[in-house]
Amino acid sequence: MFEATKVGRKVTKEDYKAEEPDLRTELLRVQREIRKTNTSVVIIVAGVEGAGKGGVVNRLNEWLDPRNVQTFAFWDQTDEEQARPRYWRFWRTLAPKGDISILFGGWYLAPIEHRFRDRCDDAQLDAELNRIADFERMLTEDGTLILKFWFHLPETVQKQRLKSLSRDDKSRWKMLPKKARFSQQYRHFEKVAERVIRHTDTGATPWYMIEATDKRYRDLTVGRTLLEAMKSRLETPQPLCIPATSHAPTLPNQASAQITLLDQVDLSKTKKRDLYKSELKKLQAEANELTWKAYQKKRSCVLVFEGVDAGGKGGAIRRLTSAVDARLYRTIPIAAPTDEEKAHHYLWRFWRHLPRAGRMTIFDRSWYGRVLVERVEGFASDPEWQRAYSEINQFEQQMSENGIIVMKFWLHISADEQLARFEARKATPYKQHKITDEDWRNREKWEEYKLAVNEMVIRTSTEFAPWHLIPGNDKKYARVTVLRTIVERLRAELKSDDKASGYIPCGPLKV
Amino acid sequence: MFEATKVGRKVTKEDYKAEEPDLRTELLRVQREIRKTNTSVVIIVAGVEGAGKGGVVNRLNEWLDPRNVQTFAFWDQTDEEQARPRYWRFWRTLAPKGDISILFGGWYLAPIEHRFRDRCDDAQLDAELNRIADFERMLTEDGTLILKFWFHLPETVQKQRLKSLSRDDKSRWKMLPKKARFSQQYRHFEKVAERVIRHTDTGATPWYMIEATDKRYRDLTVGRTLLEAMKSRLETPQPLCIPATSHAPTLPNQASAQITLLDQVDLSKTKKRDLYKSELKKLQAEANELTWKAYQKKRSCVLVFEGVDAGGKGGAIRRLTSAVDARLYRTIPIAAPTDEEKAHHYLWRFWRHLPRAGRMTIFDRSWYGRVLVERVEGFASDPEWQRAYSEINQFEQQMSENGIIVMKFWLHISADEQLARFEARKATPYKQHKITDEDWRNREKWEEYKLAVNEMVIRTSTEFAPWHLIPGNDKKYARVTVLRTIVERLRAELKSDDKASGYIPCGPLKV
Repeated sequence: MFEATKVGRKVTKEDYKAEEPDLRTELLRVQREIRKTNTSVVIIVAGVEGAGKGGVVNRLNEWLDPRNVQTFAFWDQTDEEQARPRYWRFWRTLAPKGDISILFGGWYLAPIEHRFRDRCDDAQLDAELNRIADFERMLTEDGTLILKFWFHLPETVQKQRLKSLSRDDKSRWKMLPKKARFSQQYRHFEKVAERVIRHTDTGATPWYMIEATDKRYRDLTVGRTLLEAMKSRLETPQPLCIPATSHAPTLPNQASAQITLLDQVDLSKTKKRDLYKSELKKLQAEANELTWKAYQKKRSCVLVFEGVDAGGKGGAIRRLTSAVDARLYRTIPIAAPTDEEKAHHYLWRFWRHLPRAGRMTIFDRSWYGRVLVERVEGFASDPEWQRAYSEINQFEQQMSENGIIVMKFWLHISADEQLARFEARKATPYKQHKITDEDWRNREKWEEYKLAVNEMVIRTSTEFAPWHLIPGNDKKYARVTVLRTIVERLRAELKSDDKASGYIPCGPLKV
Repeated sequence: MFEATKVGRKVTKEDYKAEEPDLRTELLRVQREIRKTNTSVVIIVAGVEGAGKGGVVNRLNEWLDPRNVQTFAFWDQTDEEQARPRYWRFWRTLAPKGDISILFGGWYLAPIEHRFRDRCDDAQLDAELNRIADFERMLTEDGTLILKFWFHLPETVQKQRLKSLSRDDKSRWKMLPKKARFSQQYRHFEKVAERVIRHTDTGATPWYMIEATDKRYRDLTVGRTLLEAMKSRLETPQPLCIPATSHAPTLPNQASAQITLLDQVDLSKTKKRDLYKSELKKLQAEANELTWKAYQKKRSCVLVFEGVDAGGKGGAIRRLTSAVDARLYRTIPIAAPTDEEKAHHYLWRFWRHLPRAGRMTIFDRSWYGRVLVERVEGFASDPEWQRAYSEINQFEQQMSENGIIVMKFWLHISADEQLARFEARKATPYKQHKITDEDWRNREKWEEYKLAVNEMVIRTSTEFAPWHLIPGNDKKYARVTVLRTIVERLRAELKSDDKASGYIPCGPLKV
């Protein structure tokens, strides 16, 4: 695979001087054009030691308008990063639309390092690479242009270069942040790298293999490649919205057979007032204790509340939060996204709110808006909401692997009950703000929402992040049931002594 | 001072039940009104151990709409917080306009703890309290409503309560995060607290002393106080914009005497091409080395570039960044604020970009926009930009105290040179985007800008964050001069072995 990077390609000083000014002008022009689009550009710079990755990045910063370029290295994880799912640190670095982010190593660094050091086997590496492929596809489908450069050197050249680097006092710092001595086992490293590249070299996000022996050749090739990729993106500005084959067609929408999971929710369930009071009190005390225990054990908790308008989400959340120490939870109400949020993938705004280890985050509405309101109202295109199911499952799987306890509640009421509650809100002065024209409009689409919910539950109720459909016609019953479900799950999860579940290939390496 | 909190005020169960529903309804209503205003509410909850601060906060979360309330505790600092100026963690928690943030202890916790443990003396404590007063005034003037509650108990009541807490298994966790045993030296703690309260009890941000022995009295009093404060804010929605007496009047604006600092900038300075090339190369090599050294020593660097349009900011920045490893710096171009930024104090958007220890952040335009374009164009009111000088000085002082090296450059050119550059930009295809109608409009206000710059330099060129006025008519001269200034400052700063400068009263306590 690396043969083509060892053929001795060179660019003479004269040729470089002749080509560089035009390339630069063009890069600046195209970068400006990109700014006007919905495209964000992610450049991953990887390769063998001594290949001059830093040099390439400096060159790019020199050629491009640096005001819209951000560069990120992934040295040690900060503790804020360690306390969250591993990809959190990458989500933080994703450029908003129109901008360019350059990532040293990106999400490839840790898997390569782990495999190189035999911290994982090939199968585990492949599993991680599949995840990377999914992640990159998700970004690409959202309009991100990903360029992955691999810089390679023949072993002899590398040896010479590292030697001269370490001899040269002025450059000794270059060796500083590197703790893994990949170069000492050139062939072993090459083998791992090849596996990684092979598994993640896709049509939409190919690897560009660059011969790094000659600096002028290396830089010009990167510049040209970047230019061509941005230009071709400008010519076909829309991201490819072809749903992957794994997306099954939507469930048949026959009027005669619209029995959904929601029809099986037993809305006749009630809870007597006395029983409610005593159960609530007991459950709240236990919730309080368990959340402190979770804090001690550094197990985070993410709760999602969705439901029919006026279904009682707020009331259920309040019964929980009034029991939990305010220092331990955060409620995130999901309304219209801010402009910073709009400039990123739709999951970005949820990633940024993920709790640190031991805390609880309560989402009052959530990422499921993508497959509910955005689907029904047509705010998301068909391919967009169709691929959201697997994006969401992967998101929640990552949380779960990090030890986060994920629970999702759908608060359901009947259409009649909703009408009664709407009318009651209209009549109560301090509740009038809770009822808007939009609520009435949503109500007209009751059946469409039912189908969307049905499909959502089928596709996203997983072992690690199950949906709980809560009968909500009786508020007392709903509140107690939500609270009991949370308490039981927390109790079960906190019984075991294990913090995280299984192998984490991208965890920080203590070298 | 605490006498009034020990008189035994009580509210009976019946009175509580009679008052609570109305209070709650009113709180919700007023909270909704606040959301429509520019006011953000900050509630600080402090007091003696065992007074039930957690209980109060839970009650507030129950009474208010929790979707617009965020609660923050300041337990251990994360390493991302430790690596930045101390107030960074508070800036992170400030609620956007319309929202409420509840802070446990807030910025008072550390000073109290440090003085209690004799880590600082009274004079040092007072210095810190003055800073707090400045900080709170700054927020208040920006429209933030700050409520500070101090919960107090007689010594005997506190003793009983802590004893029963520690006996009760279920509640033992409440004792967990507290490492300082203030209660063991009740009188000593009271003395420190009194000094803190006395020094920070101002008309705009008074302390509310609450007797916490009876929970019902405690909670109702907090609820009523909050309600009244929010109501009175709604009645006088505009923040008080009276410039503090420390704001001197603007310098006289006599047409006959408009000689400013800028007129003394020697624009005839030039640098010959050969000399430029060799000096640039040498300085860039040294800049590279020094930035790595700064990284190792964890000394951050904040560079501010301001200047006349077409003054050569971009070119100067580029000569620096092309020399520095891209992993070590970040360029922040300041354009229109995002809506999240608009919802906060104008300094918030700059605080959020402060570098972690050892990194360099380059601001291409900066917080000085407040006293330049916002002043000249009238985007900021007179009191707003007039008080900005001291706000900015305090901001930069905090960076400096944290060990950040702050440097500010004004790139100056003559009006004729600007005209020539504008014309050249118009004529060069790939530079046309750099020239807009706004640039031409700004040019008409040349004299006004000159006066604004003059005052800015006079008021904000400090020992720790000096302004450098750079003659820019000759680009080569300007670039070399900027780079040399940076290199010399870095070299001088990095020679000494001290990381931070002097006493840091709010640093983390290792208990």
